[in-house]
Order: sequence, then C-alpha cells, then structure tokens
Amino acid sequence: MFRLDEGIKFQMKKNDILTVGELLIDMISEEYDEDINSNLFHKYFGGSPANIAMNTKKLGIQSLLASAVGDDGFGKFLLNHLRKEDIDSSNIQVMDQSTSMVVVTKSKATPIPIFYRGADYQLAYTSQLEQVLLHSKIVHFSSWPISMKPARNTIEKIIKTAKNNGILICFDPNYHSMLWQKDEDGVAYIKSIIRDVDIIKPSEDDAERLFGKDTPENQIEKFLKLGAKLVIMTLGKDGVLVSNGKETMRSQTLAKEVVDTTGAGDAFWSGFYSAVVKGYTIKEAVQLGSAVSAFKLKYTGAVVELPSLEKIKELFEL
Amino acid sequence: MFRLDEGIKFQMKKNDILTVGELLIDMISEEYDEDINSNLFHKYFGGSPANIAMNTKKLGIQSLLASAVGDDGFGKFLLNHLRKEDIDSSNIQVMDQSTSMVVVTKSKATPIPIFYRGADYQLAYTSQLEQVLLHSKIVHFSSWPISMKPARNTIEKIIKTAKNNGILICFDPNYHSMLWQKDEDGVAYIKSIIRDVDIIKPSEDDAERLFGKDTPENQIEKFLKLGAKLVIMTLGKDGVLVSNGKETMRSQTLAKEVVDTTGAGDAFWSGFYSAVVKGYTIKEAVQLGSAVSAFKLKYTGAVVELPSLEKIKELFEL
Repeated sequence: MFRLDEGIKFQMKKNDILTVGELLIDMISEEYDEDINSNLFHKYFGGSPANIAMNTKKLGIQSLLASAVGDDGFGKFLLNHLRKEDIDSSNIQVMDQSTSMVVVTKSKATPIPIFYRGADYQLAYTSQLEQVLLHSKIVHFSSWPISMKPARNTIEKIIKTAKNNGILICFDPNYHSMLWQKDEDGVAYIKSIIRDVDIIKPSEDDAERLFGKDTPENQIEKFLKLGAKLVIMTLGKDGVLVSNGKETMRSQTLAKEVVDTTGAGDAFWSGFYSAVVKGYTIKEAVQLGSAVSAFKLKYTGAVVELPSLEKIKELFEL
Repeated sequence: MFRLDEGIKFQMKKNDILTVGELLIDMISEEYDEDINSNLFHKYFGGSPANIAMNTKKLGIQSLLASAVGDDGFGKFLLNHLRKEDIDSSNIQVMDQSTSMVVVTKSKATPIPIFYRGADYQLAYTSQLEQVLLHSKIVHFSSWPISMKPARNTIEKIIKTAKNNGILICFDPNYHSMLWQKDEDGVAYIKSIIRDVDIIKPSEDDAERLFGKDTPENQIEKFLKLGAKLVIMTLGKDGVLVSNGKETMRSQTLAKEVVDTTGAGDAFWSGFYSAVVKGYTIKEAVQLGSAVSAFKLKYTGAVVELPSLEKIKELFEL
C-alpha cells in the first residue's frame, strides 16, 4: 500500500531509476498538414523513456536508460545526443535492424503518426541489463517494448527480477494499436501485466484506448481492479487525480502558460520520480510532478533545460 | 534465343509492360553529410518499378504498376502522385503496414541508406494481379519484392504464370544485402531465379555484389551460365555491353552532360522496353535505352519530363 502522505522506502542502490524502452527518431513535418503532403521534415531525438532519463538527471537523481538502436546513421546520432546530455550510453544495444522512427505531421488536431519499428523491439535481456536493474531503485517502462517480441520477453524478465528484488515497477500505459501486430490483442496484454505494476500513470487518452470513454474516477477504478497499486491519472488542464484504492487526491494544474505540450507527461513522471527518490511523500511528489510539467509547458521541445527539483520547488512555491 | 539484330515477337496484349515492386518514400537529407547529422530531410516519390512505369508511359507505350503501400499519409501521397502522372493506381494494394521508406543522406561518396520495409513486401498475388499480368507483353521486377515473403511468393507465382503464357520476364538484379533477413542468403536466391529470366540488366555494382569483382565480360558469362537469355550490362560512362551467349555488342554512352545520375538505370530500361515494344531490334533498343538514359542525365530527379521515343531517336540522330 502506497499511502499518499508517506514517502516510498527504497533499498540503498547505486542508481535511482532505470528507464526501458524506445529510443528513436521523430521525423516531424515542417508545415501544419493533415495529409503528409509536406515535403520538408525535421529529424529529432525521441523516445519517452530516453526523455525521462535525461529529465531526471537534470532534476538531480541518478538515471540509466536501456534501449536498442540500429547500427546506422540514426543510431549514431541518438548515441551522440545521449553522450552530449551526459547520459550513460553503455546500456544502449546496437542491433542489426534499422533505428526505429516515427513520422509525424505537425498538426493542430491529433496528428496520425506512421511507425517504423526496427531495432527498438530487439532489446535483449542481457546479464549487463540485469546488473543495472539490480542496482536501481525504480524501473520504468513504456508500451513500446511490450508490444513486440523479443523486447516483450525482456520486459517480462525485468518485471520478474524487479518483483523478486523489491524494485519499484512503474509503467506508462501509452497504448497505441498501430504498435501491435494485427493478430494480437494489445489491450488484453496490457491489462494482463498491470497486476505486476506498482505505479501506473495513464492519461485520459491512454485510459480511453484501453477501456473506452468513462469518467476519470471510473477509469482509475479499472486500473486498480487490474492490480495497479497506485494510479496517477493526468487530466491535462484539469490537473491530476491519484488513488491507491483507499485514498484519493486531486492536484490542480500549475501551468499558467502553454507553449508546447510535447513531453509534458514525461516531465510529470520525471518530477514525480525525482521527488520520491529524494524522500518526498507521494502527495508532494505528485505536486512536484505537476510543477515540472508546468515548467516544461512553457518551452518548445520534448526535453527542455530543467533546473534542479529544489529550484522547481522554489519557483512554484511548494 | 534473342538475336541482336532481330526484334522480339510479342503476342497481342492490351498492356505493354507490367512493372512489379517497390513504391516508396525516399527521404533525402538536405545537406551533404556522411553521418546523417543533417536535420532537414526532403520527401520524394520513389521506387524503381514505379519510375519505369512512368517513364515508359511518357515514351509512348502502355504501362501498369503493381505495388503495395500503407494505409497512411505516405501511401496517399504516392497514390496521388501516380494519379497526377496519369498512371493507373488500381493495382496498388493498400496494406496494414506502414508505407516503405528509404532514408538517404545526400553524399558525394556512396551514401549508406537506411531501409524501412513495411507495406512493400506484403504484395499479394491476387486474381486482379494475375489478370493484368496475362494482359501484358512484358513483366519487369526488381530485387525488393523477392527479398522478403510474402512478396517473394508473389513474384514466384508471377514468373510461373509468365513462363506458361509467353510473357517476357525481365529482372533488375539490384541486390542489396540490407534488404534481406540476416539468416537468408540473398545472393544464392537471386542466382537461383536467373534461370527463369529472359532479360537481365545488371550494373557493374550489381554484378560485383553477386559475384565479386571481375571484368564485365566475365560477369556477363556468369549471368548467362545461370540461365539468363540476354544480359545487358550497363557500365556507366563506358556504355553498355550486351550478350546472348553467341553474339556480343557494345554501345557507347550517348551522355554528353551529367547533372544527376539518379534513375539513369531506370531510364535505360524504359527506353529499351519502349523500343522493343515498338518493334525495334535488340541492337536498336539498346541504343535507344542509352539515348533515354543520356537524356535523363541532363536533368535532376529520378523521373524527368521525357519526350516520346520517336523524339528521343530524332534528338540523338539514331
């Protein structure tokens, strides 16, 4: 049971958080265009677990990233970017497949991405990966690696090892049907692994893709029934709703200025993780997550120049 | 036996040539850069069989294209482009996978492409495809569809139907190891299908990838030994070397100005096909292929505004 006015007790470990999942190229169109008639595309560093690793490091905790890229120009670009950001790249596996990519047209409505999966789902459970896992307090993974084998098998082994060793298991249920093979029921699989998850942070869209439309309160109930221990549901401008099944809290948004929503969810996770590692209660960590997200929203880009968590706390008078 | 000073006798058919294979996005970097550090990419219409279909139509024969694209923005873009070029798009299968893409950095040396295979290799042998094949004089395919199943099975069925119905079988052996699965021997497979091929047009690079370095004369011998009936080897600035195993001819290049070599091989095929369909001898068709290629070399882009074959003949005083 995660009590909202208590912190999370961690064992002493060398590393605070290990994020596992996609590290990829975001290829984004120059102009707003619904039909990808745009001729010019910009290449960006991408991947939510990579963003969280970079954010949490900026906020002041120890982070590691486990991913897989291709042995190609895009893979080199991603590895170089991580090194520039001072992120340890020794757990990035370099595979024979092409570096994964998502093509997106800039859009004021919901853009329809085109997914090019390559190296990302080749992530292997190596003894090196097991070692960094065993030396981490928290393991975080996204929906990408569980959507295709062999990465799915890797995550299943990670979950097993984490459970056996008291490592906090956190899952970003960013389900997208196009990530899954046509003959597989991704929704059923995601539901089946929630029983092993400690903390889950769905957005309203995530919940709707899994359960259909419903109120946030009802959606949270469904995640709890499936076995999640703590559900943090982000509601955009309506803030955050949190429940452990006994206690519920709502946190208002701290955002006053919204320039770009890209990476706002990752920023929330990053603030939350940094706070619980630093000993804050869950209630405080949720507020600090909201504060980091609000800070990010003022700037363009998935990863922005975050100050330390302490500085964020001061800025938002928390 | 294809005698060099004779034409090719075709049955009366509604369509002249059916090209089968990749229809895809070429994503090409803005700047010259060996490491894909370039941030800006341009999206282009691509795929050699599609280029040949468009070229031959401009040159004045009937052409059809069979390919597969994804049900996404890129697929729509490719279909729209074909329609603009007045190419029948009813044999383009729309599949669940993402539209295939090749990412290339502009380079003065040999660029290293990154391949993203999706819809292209899903090409199915449908009764519609069989019908357009049966109504065609020539079927042309590239190495893309044979590199992965189920498209490989489709090509095998196409070859069988073509052989049983006296349709000319032409193959572009543009082998690239990265198109094949790691555990498959693409070279051995390509060699194995050459026995069923009437006309093959390797470049020197194609031959080297299949057989290693050797003289053009020796490379041609190898293709003939594998069962090709007519080998047309393009040698860049050194022209074209042709052999049916008994007779050999060399054609000098007709290019005086080289602005962009992209699509020069497709332009050769296009001129050659248009000429044999129009009743020219193989010798004449090789020269007309060289002429169309020389015309293309003066302009930038894989597909340029070709005039009719008769106009090309006049321009090059053939």
